[in-house]
Amino acid sequence: MTLSLDQINNAAADVAAGLLDGVYEHSPWIAQAALGHRPFHSLAQLKHRMAQVVRDAPPDDQLALIRAHPELAGKAMVSKTLTAESTHEQGKAGLTSCTPEEFARIQRLNADYNARFGFPFILAVRGPRGTGLGKAEIIETFARRLDNHPDFERAEALRNIHRIAEIRLNDKFGVEPVLGNRVWDWQEALAQHSDPGFAEKGQLTVTYLTDAHRACAQRISATMREAGFDEVHIDAVGNVVGRYKASAPGAATLMTGSHYDTVRNGGKYDGRLGIFTPMACVQELARQGRRLPFDLEVIGFAEEEGQRYKATFLGSGALIGQFNTAWLDQKDADGITMRTAMQHAGLNVDDIPGLKRNPADYLGFVEVHIEQGPVLNELDLPLGIVTSINGGRRYLCEVIGMASHAGTTPMNRRRDAAVAVAELALYVEQRAARDGDSVGTIGILNVPNGSTNVVPGRCQFTLDLRAPTDAQRDALVDDVLAQLAAICERRGLRHTCEETMCAAAAPSDAAWQQRWERAVDALGLPLFRMPSGAGHDAMKLHEVMPQAMLFVRGQNAGISHNPLESTTSDDMQLAVEAFLHLLDGVARATH
Amino acid sequence: MTLSLDQINNAAADVAAGLLDGVYEHSPWIAQAALGHRPFHSLAQLKHRMAQVVRDAPPDDQLALIRAHPELAGKAMVSKTLTAESTHEQGKAGLTSCTPEEFARIQRLNADYNARFGFPFILAVRGPRGTGLGKAEIIETFARRLDNHPDFERAEALRNIHRIAEIRLNDKFGVEPVLGNRVWDWQEALAQHSDPGFAEKGQLTVTYLTDAHRACAQRISATMREAGFDEVHIDAVGNVVGRYKASAPGAATLMTGSHYDTVRNGGKYDGRLGIFTPMACVQELARQGRRLPFDLEVIGFAEEEGQRYKATFLGSGALIGQFNTAWLDQKDADGITMRTAMQHAGLNVDDIPGLKRNPADYLGFVEVHIEQGPVLNELDLPLGIVTSINGGRRYLCEVIGMASHAGTTPMNRRRDAAVAVAELALYVEQRAARDGDSVGTIGILNVPNGSTNVVPGRCQFTLDLRAPTDAQRDALVDDVLAQLAAICERRGLRHTCEETMCAAAAPSDAAWQQRWERAVDALGLPLFRMPSGAGHDAMKLHEVMPQAMLFVRGQNAGISHNPLESTTSDDMQLAVEAFLHLLDGVARATH
Repeated sequence: MTLSLDQINNAAADVAAGLLDGVYEHSPWIAQAALGHRPFHSLAQLKHRMAQVVRDAPPDDQLALIRAHPELAGKAMVSKTLTAESTHEQGKAGLTSCTPEEFARIQRLNADYNARFGFPFILAVRGPRGTGLGKAEIIETFARRLDNHPDFERAEALRNIHRIAEIRLNDKFGVEPVLGNRVWDWQEALAQHSDPGFAEKGQLTVTYLTDAHRACAQRISATMREAGFDEVHIDAVGNVVGRYKASAPGAATLMTGSHYDTVRNGGKYDGRLGIFTPMACVQELARQGRRLPFDLEVIGFAEEEGQRYKATFLGSGALIGQFNTAWLDQKDADGITMRTAMQHAGLNVDDIPGLKRNPADYLGFVEVHIEQGPVLNELDLPLGIVTSINGGRRYLCEVIGMASHAGTTPMNRRRDAAVAVAELALYVEQRAARDGDSVGTIGILNVPNGSTNVVPGRCQFTLDLRAPTDAQRDALVDDVLAQLAAICERRGLRHTCEETMCAAAAPSDAAWQQRWERAVDALGLPLFRMPSGAGHDAMKLHEVMPQAMLFVRGQNAGISHNPLESTTSDDMQLAVEAFLHLLDGVARATH
Repeated sequence: MTLSLDQINNAAADVAAGLLDGVYEHSPWIAQAALGHRPFHSLAQLKHRMAQVVRDAPPDDQLALIRAHPELAGKAMVSKTLTAESTHEQGKAGLTSCTPEEFARIQRLNADYNARFGFPFILAVRGPRGTGLGKAEIIETFARRLDNHPDFERAEALRNIHRIAEIRLNDKFGVEPVLGNRVWDWQEALAQHSDPGFAEKGQLTVTYLTDAHRACAQRISATMREAGFDEVHIDAVGNVVGRYKASAPGAATLMTGSHYDTVRNGGKYDGRLGIFTPMACVQELARQGRRLPFDLEVIGFAEEEGQRYKATFLGSGALIGQFNTAWLDQKDADGITMRTAMQHAGLNVDDIPGLKRNPADYLGFVEVHIEQGPVLNELDLPLGIVTSINGGRRYLCEVIGMASHAGTTPMNRRRDAAVAVAELALYVEQRAARDGDSVGTIGILNVPNGSTNVVPGRCQFTLDLRAPTDAQRDALVDDVLAQLAAICERRGLRHTCEETMCAAAAPSDAAWQQRWERAVDALGLPLFRMPSGAGHDAMKLHEVMPQAMLFVRGQNAGISHNPLESTTSDDMQLAVEAFLHLLDGVARATH
């Protein structure tokens, strides 16, 4: 017997609450409060509302919810599992057959966790795909979360509880994120390819035109063909280009896509989610035999991360005529030039200029991307609307004072380079925060050859300053550099400051941003607008056509460029559904 | 025709000013103002007064004084010299025969210097011994000073002008720092011995019981014997012990001395000045055929710096029974144990316990030491009275936050470990300054594996906190560690903090400090009291007998543990004279 939204929407409040009994452990107040917001237009909306009820509850109620989950008991560990999920769920976790060593480890972790946080360890053991985490993964997660700050860990426990609730709701409603699972499985399959030196360690690294990279291109091509694309080819820089043709010839084209290369030891979703999400849409359209009134061009960009060669956005850049032929003579760490790598891959350098698109042929560019940040995760929101890709400037700086004896140099006679940088660091923090949506970071900070008993004579650091518009970015930069100069002047220090990067902001096109907003709204989800702090392929296309992006929530505080990068197949399902809504919207407007 | 202080003190003001004409270049106002403070009891007092007049003058007058010195002219360079000193002085500098390359280098330096500072480069080319700097040394100094901060360099120019004036006054008054020069020459001779690997590079390194170290002991022993010491021997840990006997047997003993080992690539004066200064006194007493009513025991301590083995204060520690026999099994970088090194040096480990002194036999311990800090140099004071050797505590700390994407993590969602440490650094600076004589330093500061575009997840740093009393030190430590905890709590970060050193303060004995004060006063110099930020052998003797120290000004901002460590033979002369006054004072009190 599966539930329906109609039942929930139409039943008496106490009956509806009873139908939702057990979604949150021993906490009927959550369903009761959520039901005050009926009717629900989607299961996603119900899930979101229940999470919001918990968000808005007093901390003591949140803690009571966490503590409502059974304690991890030594006896239960050998044959049962870590968390409050049902025996059915525990079974999937594979924790019922621990070795004595694993059992002992879990017992120690459990004791340490309780001592540190004062509440039981909660983990959604069915995991982001819903099919269950392995024993090793559960134990690793337990150990890793032991290092979290208590505030963060409490929030992480609640997020796991929401995920458990989501899976229980899926089960109750007989819903499966079929398209999300498909995207998930494509991601997994693609992640089997990794560069030598990383593959052996189980790490994902796919850099430009390596064997693994070319295998990825082949696999994406094949998957596109299976999905029902009409034309698929690998272009002269290695981009995989698939086209799902319009209902009639001569139509304009909507371009979408993202990159399939990765950073070293990176995550599975950065870039790739933006290729597979529209591929799932095409597969769905093809299954329904539907054609759009425009061509849909889905591109897996060959290179965005600049890892093997110093040539970021090579894939998307080539499409706007920005391929720099000087790059061809760059050598990788093994001395192989890009030209040689391209020849080896069968790519014809002479064809690169021909990749340049004519913007008049295009409606615009849209890109789906994992957020790579903590915002959606922290707010319990699956999707976010990108307002702008932040512009940024980077600097490599050094403050030079006078190294001196830490014991014999009175405080008022010091020229301490590090304290000056400390003063700047606090200024950067305050100044960026004042804008609300600017960010400023000192990521590298180092007193070269520092000694405990020597007043720092030099301090090296970087500045990374970003904002949604170039004007806001430059005002931030001006203030920070002026402050650096003022601090050095006041403290009697010298400084150097070299700009190492300057990237223009790429504000979303208003009409395309609105199309994403309508799509998210159609899913029953709240609209959350946010800038993109990271750069994306859309920045390149922005230079020649309108663009707008959609962000998908990342797990683990949105960590990225890291193997812990993760998102659920339920969130991927929502991304696919949003993309389908966007395509429908454009179709309606194009007719 | 040489001048006398009587002439200066008794002449009419304009006549006296005329007698001092040319001491400061084209600036008769300095002598005029100084003469308002007649009578002068010593030439040192006159020198100090003139320097004070310049110190108290408005910045424009100071700048005018600097600019009164002739510009470094290209034409003059080939056959003449860099500065405003007389041809006689220039001759000693050896700059009259530059190679074309040297000439070109000096021209470039001169252009750069003028462009940077707007005043001519001033260097007392007769140097700290009065006998002239070499060409290479002058050019090196020129290049080095080009990197100074403008404020500091202006003060450094004035200090060089004072040094030029001092040498001119010595010439006018027919005074030569004979005892200071003797100490200077002994230091130079001792600095000829250096450990392999350093000697070849012209660097001074003398670590425990190396060949160079044992040669130093032999040379100090021989010099003591020549100077007139009655008994000289090398004890069981390598200390060189000289005794100048009292006028009658059975008298108590005054102990003095310092260490003759050095840090790697160290200076010539750290430690050694405290051996040679009393040796010059003994030589002077012996020359005069004078005996004191107490034995004077001058000790060259074999080890203080803890460079070859982790056993600081080994030499002075042995005298208070603190030789740790576990040290004997420590190995140096070449795998040689301390026991083997001692056997090789002919030292008998079994005799070490017998080195322990009976405090009842001693009047106390005094120690002369180069300041190793900038205070006396900056205040134009040759000598300083030590009030206490600061107690200190050191910590190795780490703040742990959460590494995240610098672009995608909003300012209010960061757990930035480095900004937390920045906040602490500013607190340490303010909190230590509030005490006036405490010091607090973050000497090591590092974001491990930091990246420009990653919010720092970890930040490692050290704390070095010192104060003249243990209570003041501990209050400082408590406040700093409480602040660290509060910052981490507020910012949601973890931290670790490990104490790596805890040293008790050694306040000077009131009576012995007063004897140094009377000695400095007798020289016509102002009394300037200051804590010692660095540790010294006197800390060890402090545990069993009263002690007090005298500091001698260092050049080059008091830099130490560095080949640039320097002091003048005039300042050494004052140290010897002060020591003789102290001995006289003790003699009067003992009779």
